[in-house]
Amino acid sequence: MISVVEARDRILAELAPLPWETVALSAGHGRVLARDAAARVMQPPAAVSAMDGYAVRAVDVAAVPARLKLVGMSRAGEAFAGRLGPGQAVRIFTGAVLPEGADAVVIQEDTEAEGQQPGAIVSVREAAARGRHVREAGFDFQVGQVGIAAGRALTARDIGLAAAMNLPWLEVRRRPRIGVLATGDEIVRPGEPIGPSQIVSSNALALAALIRGSGGETVDLGIARDRVASVAEHAAGARGCDLLVTLGGASVGEHDLVREALAPRGLKLDFWQVAMRPGKPLMFGRVGDIPLLGFPGNPVASLVCGLLFLRPALFRLQGCEGGLPDFRPALLGRDLPANDRREDYMRASAAWRADGQWEVSPFERQDSSNLLRLARADALVVRAPHAPALTAGRPVQALALSGTLGGF
Amino acid sequence: MISVVEARDRILAELAPLPWETVALSAGHGRVLARDAAARVMQPPAAVSAMDGYAVRAVDVAAVPARLKLVGMSRAGEAFAGRLGPGQAVRIFTGAVLPEGADAVVIQEDTEAEGQQPGAIVSVREAAARGRHVREAGFDFQVGQVGIAAGRALTARDIGLAAAMNLPWLEVRRRPRIGVLATGDEIVRPGEPIGPSQIVSSNALALAALIRGSGGETVDLGIARDRVASVAEHAAGARGCDLLVTLGGASVGEHDLVREALAPRGLKLDFWQVAMRPGKPLMFGRVGDIPLLGFPGNPVASLVCGLLFLRPALFRLQGCEGGLPDFRPALLGRDLPANDRREDYMRASAAWRADGQWEVSPFERQDSSNLLRLARADALVVRAPHAPALTAGRPVQALALSGTLGGF
Repeated sequence: MISVVEARDRILAELAPLPWETVALSAGHGRVLARDAAARVMQPPAAVSAMDGYAVRAVDVAAVPARLKLVGMSRAGEAFAGRLGPGQAVRIFTGAVLPEGADAVVIQEDTEAEGQQPGAIVSVREAAARGRHVREAGFDFQVGQVGIAAGRALTARDIGLAAAMNLPWLEVRRRPRIGVLATGDEIVRPGEPIGPSQIVSSNALALAALIRGSGGETVDLGIARDRVASVAEHAAGARGCDLLVTLGGASVGEHDLVREALAPRGLKLDFWQVAMRPGKPLMFGRVGDIPLLGFPGNPVASLVCGLLFLRPALFRLQGCEGGLPDFRPALLGRDLPANDRREDYMRASAAWRADGQWEVSPFERQDSSNLLRLARADALVVRAPHAPALTAGRPVQALALSGTLGGF
Repeated sequence: MISVVEARDRILAELAPLPWETVALSAGHGRVLARDAAARVMQPPAAVSAMDGYAVRAVDVAAVPARLKLVGMSRAGEAFAGRLGPGQAVRIFTGAVLPEGADAVVIQEDTEAEGQQPGAIVSVREAAARGRHVREAGFDFQVGQVGIAAGRALTARDIGLAAAMNLPWLEVRRRPRIGVLATGDEIVRPGEPIGPSQIVSSNALALAALIRGSGGETVDLGIARDRVASVAEHAAGARGCDLLVTLGGASVGEHDLVREALAPRGLKLDFWQVAMRPGKPLMFGRVGDIPLLGFPGNPVASLVCGLLFLRPALFRLQGCEGGLPDFRPALLGRDLPANDRREDYMRASAAWRADGQWEVSPFERQDSSNLLRLARADALVVRAPHAPALTAGRPVQALALSGTLGGF
């Protein structure tokens, strides 16, 4: 058995970013940028006012009160056409281009104007140094400046920035296509007739949601029965997928159906057991060109494996650094016994304490068949192999599970 | 001017959850459940084995070593049909139904079997109490038990749970339809011809991404020009929307175009200024039946307003508790001057320190036109009105911005 970290490293080492495709900027949110995005325009395109007020020459308002003559107006979308001369002022609004000759803005609260017609006198009560309330040209970004680096998972803010940089199209990584193949005589889809000794399949649908939430697309390869031929037939549908995930089928009686079914298709196994709980029977290899992740059939185990292995794999396929589970320091809310040789991922409730500390309390019963408890967990508490017993209040590492719309 | 919290409270008080619609379970991820989801099946449907091993009567293995006679097999999907008698054992696999008469499972590592054929002798080396390695019927959930409560934003785990509960369809809140109307003579869409004094519009696209990431759909009402008639014409497209967001147009020269354009359509204003930076000119009201949020035209200000007001509004429309900005304790990475009377949302870099503390460092320049800086910020640091000067290392409240695929 290998460790979780070694397993993940070996999986990620076998995966490379997918090719890119072009999408409209409006479809870019949540995609991963494949090439650096550089600005096509300068922002702002000229020196502009940061406030509503009057564009002036700083020398004219060095001594106040100063009386200036209003010669025009500059507003966003319509600049003042002339040049500001000595003793003159131009009415200006936030974002409007600073007139030629002006080098400062006095805010309107510091002025008094005898009207807004050209020729009106503007009294300025406060001095303004050169550059005061002026945003210089290119202050936000220059032409050619890289605003968003390749590998970034595009946020709403990035979409805004790309728009401002005048990029109507973006080159992003293709969405990874993940074949998901459930196995087992005992499972049926929701809503289908349930025979005796049968239960409703849950992990294929849950993993499809996790895949979607990680930027990928699921190819649903159905439910194979517990026969080698059935597994082989369903697995054939993975052609063209970037990764195949099988669920269960690793220890059906004395058989490993997935290995037997895929051996004739050139299965090369890398590893097949990981020292973790839940999820020990985790297989990784390759079937021809397609990387294969063999997950346990147990729903809780397969979902934890999805978070620890599949989500990072999807990020790697998209050329993105993120996706690794983000374990953080927390304090234990209850005593825990010593751990055995398997890394343990305990489902837990969590809460923020008044002192700002994050407190996590693993559920009493950690049975890996308990899907309701997994769904209600706030956190996974990780315990290293052979970790000693801990009392309440001691520090541990935990991963927050809840909170995000469309999250895990 | 009112406070941010009062503004948000007044907005949310005016919004009610939208009606529900039915979606397939496979489309439920990221939607908000409108009605409690109760299990249609019991899980597990009968007592099942939690391990691979042998189903036994606990009394038969109270004294070990014990010799039992193998009488059959129970595997997932195909239960043992008979009844287990005294001195008998049934080969059993994880998830398989416990045979009638059996009340415990001994794991295979604690046994030795002279073959797997009926009649073979199984030697048991370790005693097993009643219920050992048995998952009782209904241990995960009972028929009729509410597994997921109304108002929950469905995670991947919830989708798995709903599947296991045998729910092929879910009743979820309709996606809020948000009309977004940009205004301004100075803006054009990305890729369109840019005139003198014009810049590329960014906040409508960024807000559309934020809306999508918050469960809503955007109706793009285009860019109105700085004329009352143009704003009125574009705003007419909001018919049937659940909320209208306008961008800019609140102080065009001496005019408030949005108010002037919507007054004939029955605009009722609730408030129009919030004591915050960026984002002071924030308007809330109602145009006929449609709630109206008037955002500043400044991209940074409108995005911060999106996070503080629009995202919570979208959650409210979906009947979901979440969506409020999640400010957390952090430590300042640099000195800050005293704040003025407006609540300040400072763009900041952030990092986790070795001691587990989260350190946030507001950027030196906080100009609200700096979109690149917003896109690269890790956090927003909030400062209360009239907050005193703070030195590096002092505690503040901050909101994490980065990290999620498809996030803000």
